[in-house]
Formats: sequence, C-alpha cells, structure tokens
Amino acid sequence: MRQRNKPWAKEKLHEYKDIVISEPENQKGNWHEIFNNNNPIYIEVGTGKGQFISQMAKKNPDGNFIGIELSASVIVTALDKVLETEVENVRLLNVNAEKLTDYFSESEISRVFLNFSDPWPKNRHEKRRLMYSDFLSVYETILKPEGEVHFKTDNQALFEYSIYSFSNYGMIIKNVSLDLHKSDFENNVMTEYEEKFSEKGNRIYRCEAQFRNKAR
Amino acid sequence: MRQRNKPWAKEKLHEYKDIVISEPENQKGNWHEIFNNNNPIYIEVGTGKGQFISQMAKKNPDGNFIGIELSASVIVTALDKVLETEVENVRLLNVNAEKLTDYFSESEISRVFLNFSDPWPKNRHEKRRLMYSDFLSVYETILKPEGEVHFKTDNQALFEYSIYSFSNYGMIIKNVSLDLHKSDFENNVMTEYEEKFSEKGNRIYRCEAQFRNKAR
Ligand SMILES: C[S@@+](CC[C@H](N)C(=O)[O-])C[C@H]1O[C@@H](n2cnc3c(N)ncnc32)[C@H](O)[C@@H]1O
Ligand SMILES: C[S@@+](CC[C@H](N)C(=O)[O-])C[C@H]1O[C@@H](n2cnc3c(N)ncnc32)[C@H](O)[C@@H]1O
Repeated sequence: MRQRNKPWAKEKLHEYKDIVISEPENQKGNWHEIFNNNNPIYIEVGTGKGQFISQMAKKNPDGNFIGIELSASVIVTALDKVLETEVENVRLLNVNAEKLTDYFSESEISRVFLNFSDPWPKNRHEKRRLMYSDFLSVYETILKPEGEVHFKTDNQALFEYSIYSFSNYGMIIKNVSLDLHKSDFENNVMTEYEEKFSEKGNRIYRCEAQFRNKAR
Repeated sequence: MRQRNKPWAKEKLHEYKDIVISEPENQKGNWHEIFNNNNPIYIEVGTGKGQFISQMAKKNPDGNFIGIELSASVIVTALDKVLETEVENVRLLNVNAEKLTDYFSESEISRVFLNFSDPWPKNRHEKRRLMYSDFLSVYETILKPEGEVHFKTDNQALFEYSIYSFSNYGMIIKNVSLDLHKSDFENNVMTEYEEKFSEKGNRIYRCEAQFRNKAR
C-alpha cells in the first residue's frame, strides 16, 4: 500500500493499547478473555486502512474481529476508523502474518479473511503471497478444524494462483464468484481497495477455501 | 447441442467402422493395437462437431485422439470433419461418458479434454455435469496416475462449480486462466463453441485439474 511514512504512528498506536495490542505473544490462548466473551474470533490479514474490519464488526456484534497489518503508517488509519465506528469488538495487531502462530494458539480462530492481498506478480516472490503454502500452514494451525479462508481480489493473476495454491494444499474451494458485484452474494462489505478498483470497472473475484479435517 | 435429428446418422456411422468404433466394450485394453502404435491416447468427452479433436490430431501426429459423443446426429458431423482433415490418429465413439470404464481399462488414457460441456445450470441436474464427482471417478480410473483433465468453457457458473468439484475431489487445479484469449497460453485449438462465444465477446475460462497419486 503506497502510504507516506508517519514517524509519529508508533506513538499513536501505543496510546491506544486497549485496541492495538502490543506484545501479542503474551496473549496467545487468551483472546477470548481480551474480548471478554466467547464469541468466535475472525482475523483479517493485511487489514490496510480498516474499513472492512470496522464495518464487519459493526454488522456482526456477535463476533470478535482482529485486524493484522504490517505497516504502522497504514494501521494508524485503521485505528482511526475503529474509533470513528465506535465498535468494541475490534482489536488491531501491528505484526507480520508470518508469525501468527506466536500470537494465537491452535484452533483459537474461526475464520481468516484475505482482502486484496499484495499480488507479488514475480515468480521469485511467490513466497511472499499471503496464500503461499507456508502461510496456509500457519492459518491451518490457528484455525478450528475445517476452518475457512475467505479471499477476494480484483487481481486476476493472484486469483488464478490462489486456486492453484489452495487446491495444491488439499483445500476445498467453495462459493467461487468470478464477478462478485454481479453475483447474488449478500451482505458484501467493501474494502478500500474494492471500492477503488470496482469503480474502475475491474471485476472482483472471490472464493472460500476450507481446510480438510485431518486426524489431529 | 441444438441439432436437427438425422435418422440416417446411425447408418452413416456404421459405414465408417474403422473410424467410429462400434461395440467399444470389446476393445477395452486394446486401444494401442487399434491405433497400431504406442503413442499416448487422449480423449475428448462431449466432442460435438469434432473441430477440436481433428485439429488436435493434425497438430499432434505423435498422439492418438478419441472423441466421445452421445448424440449420433452430432457425431456424424465430427466424422465428416475427421474425413476432411485426413487424419489417421482419430477414432470416434458414439457413447455416454458414464460408461467409459466399460470401454477403457485402468490407466489406458493419458488425458481427458472437456470443452464447453453442457452447463446444466439447475442444482438438481448437478449429477449430469461432466465434472460431477461420479464422472471424475470414471476419469480417474481410466487415466494414468497423476493424469489430468483439461477443461475450458465460457460459462461462468459452470467454471465456478468446476473449481469446487475438482478441489472437493482432492484434485490439484493448475494453469488457471480466467481470460484464455488474452493470456499467454500457446497453441490453443478452438472448438466450435469457443469460436461462437468468444466472437460474442465472452471470456473463455480454462484450467487443468490433476488427480493426486494414490496408492494404487
Ligand atoms: C493491497 S493492501 C489491501 C488493504 C485492504 N485489505 C483493502 O482491501 O483495502 C495489502 C495490505 O496487506 C499488508 N500486508 C502485506 N503483507 C503482510 C504481512 N505479511 N503481514 C501483515 N500485513 C501484510 C500491507 O502492508 C498492505 O497494507
Ligand atoms: C455444448 S456441446 C460442446 C461441443 C464441443 N466440445 C465444442 O466445444 O464445440 C456439448 C456436447 O457434449 C455432449 N455430451 C453431453 N453429455 C455427454 C455424455 N454424458 N457423454 C457423451 N457426450 C455428452 C452433447 O451431446 C454435446 O454435443
């Protein structure tokens, strides 16, 4: 995400410690206590400016939502969005998704959302894509059995790759939509990127990928 | 395929017994002898008027091609196409794909092509779609280990369903193209339906689905 550097961002995140959880490794296995309820916990990986996570939280008060975002300069905007939307059921983590098993224990999470993930079009950058097998293995660990990854993007090549990567991992790919905004999918919550690229006339692709129930 | 009934079709097919193989159940395990070589055998299920199978055979003289088509009135046109193209490496079967394990022995086939298969859009007709799990199980039996199904269509809903069905069966879906005619896919051989629907401006979707190597 192109974004100017905000040297004050870290400080601001620190001010809102009840929303932006610092040292999340200390909270592993503890997230239901943080939310103070037993509602399912959903995470979005690569939250960006936070429109999706805030709106999802508002529309689904019976769920808990955690936005994961690498860039401090971007996640401060998500913080503003959370404050603005006045939702109690959102937390933010300024961390790299590579490390999610350090922050969540096995089966602690009910769903992973991936929205308009960075495409990394070059083959040699395949490992950085958030649906590369190493990431899938991280999601599988923290998700409940048969947990799902819900993915959308306007990037055709990334969607094509994702179908390969999900199926190669042995996942079941369900509810595929090759033109989300013309489909009968209900209650779609748009992200910032989704608004921008669908306005340009790009198709939005979406699917749900489910891990198979392994003998655990 | 809309096609007027041709009462004389069966008779004509019978005249060309060296191309349109009658009683194929007697040839099970015997196909390399019919082609008189050990080249790989490729089948197209739902061959229609035969442009694809004839052109593929012409471009790939080191392969053997068998077109499977239910309708006698349609397959006579494929017969004409084969005669016209003067290819020796094509055979046609006027049979239902349901029964393919009666005609081919285990691992006798090197690839299955599905082109613009009938979409059967109603849920209650799911079982008739050529990528329904029962059909996949038939293909898996007659294909060599890690054999592939190569599928293309302009029908968005059928392609969405196919991604589900292939992945649910445990297949690996590779080389997905969500806009074949704008992709870098080389040596594409167009079918009759492909010419017609791409001229209308429809996108062509394509993928390759590979069976996993099971302990056999
Ligand atoms: C293209 S933006 C999309 C933002 C938002 N989901 C949307 O749809 O508007 C992708 C975001 O993912 C973040 N990101 C990329 N890789 C990440 C990783 N490994 N861990 C956490 N965040 C990541 C980037 O910093 C960027 O903000
Ligand atoms: C829509 S047409 C497409 C023809 C051709 N593949 C093309 O792309 O131009 C589908 C064809 O599949 C045939 N077909 C449908 N179900 C079949 C089955 N179970 N076994 C054999 N052929 C079948 C139909 O008769 C029809 O000719």
